[in-house]
Amino acid sequence: MIRHLTVSTPGQGLHEFTDQLNALVRDAGVREGLCTLFIQHASASLLIDAGQDGPSQNDPLYTHQNEGPDDMPGHIKSALTATQISIPVSEGRLALGTWQGVYLWEHRHRGGARRLVVRIGA
Amino acid sequence: MIRHLTVSTPGQGLHEFTDQLNALVRDAGVREGLCTLFIQHASASLLIDAGQDGPSQNDPLYTHQNEGPDDMPGHIKSALTATQISIPVSEGRLALGTWQGVYLWEHRHRGGARRLVVRIGA
Amino acid sequence: MIRHLTVSTPGQGLHEFTDQLNALVRDAGVREGLCTLFIQHASASLLIDAGQDGPSQNDPLYTHQNEGPDDMPGHIKSALTATQISIPVSEGRLALGTWQGVYLWEHRHRGGARRLVVRIGA
Repeated sequence: MIRHLTVSTPGQGLHEFTDQLNALVRDAGVREGLCTLFIQHASASLLIDAGQDGPSQNDPLYTHQNEGPDDMPGHIKSALTATQISIPVSEGRLALGTWQGVYLWEHRHRGGARRLVVRIGA
Repeated sequence: MIRHLTVSTPGQGLHEFTDQLNALVRDAGVREGLCTLFIQHASASLLIDAGQDGPSQNDPLYTHQNEGPDDMPGHIKSALTATQISIPVSEGRLALGTWQGVYLWEHRHRGGARRLVVRIGA
Repeated sequence: MIRHLTVSTPGQGLHEFTDQLNALVRDAGVREGLCTLFIQHASASLLIDAGQDGPSQNDPLYTHQNEGPDDMPGHIKSALTATQISIPVSEGRLALGTWQGVYLWEHRHRGGARRLVVRIGA
């Protein structure tokens, strides 16, 4: 099953959409399989994050500017981050760890409507 | 369906092979499914790039030497880049965004014949 | 087929588990397909490494401290490394290159029992 999903982002940083994705998996009626997300943009990427450190709305590479490559330009960021993620489906749900969520990582200061292609296979 | 694909690279940087890959998908006769690429080398990787910035033959981490980690050694580059990418197939084609292409990213100054395993599943 | 796999790590660095994974693939009886690994933690990731440089037990970002970002904090490392990898299965085995192995990359100084979800599809 192929579905198209749009995630709107207000600006740079992480935006969780785990619930939207689990709803798609539930609608697909797949009990065991694989859910693959693909983002059709170069200026945003996908991330599985655990969020143990508190709210994850911020950009991991921007907010840690005293510790890491804060000035990493978008082109490099895009080359090192994920356009695609596959998550196993087990018992009708994404097989995420307890604290894990699925995030769209916006790299532009101004966000937008980001198009994802979701493939759910049995 | 498993296919083997060889992409020859003249040297360091990005080398597009979207057309070769779409031809494989067409030959597979799969209308809806998943195409997974896996590169059998550590000194090259895979990248989905949008190429809006003009020709993408150059190396994203090398050409931006005034902005980023230009001296990143091959071992680190290999650890942070993608050995594998999965792309949904929709209506018999790779479901790429308008500007996106599939690139082999050569990390060695001298390129070579790079072996890929391609799996196309319905 | 969904399986759960635990890899125990004594501490930071790379820990190979190719043999364990090939055993799972063999038990699944899948001759041709796709094996997807997903790690249910944020403080560890997955890596395909070629190990040509000798033993790969060490951390690629730590041991090269004179060449690269040795002080990269865990949060950034997690954002730039792989939570998930898919490997084609061909002739009943993982279609790895001659020198490639599958590694769990522990980011914490103290390791632990790391949970993986493995999906093997025909």
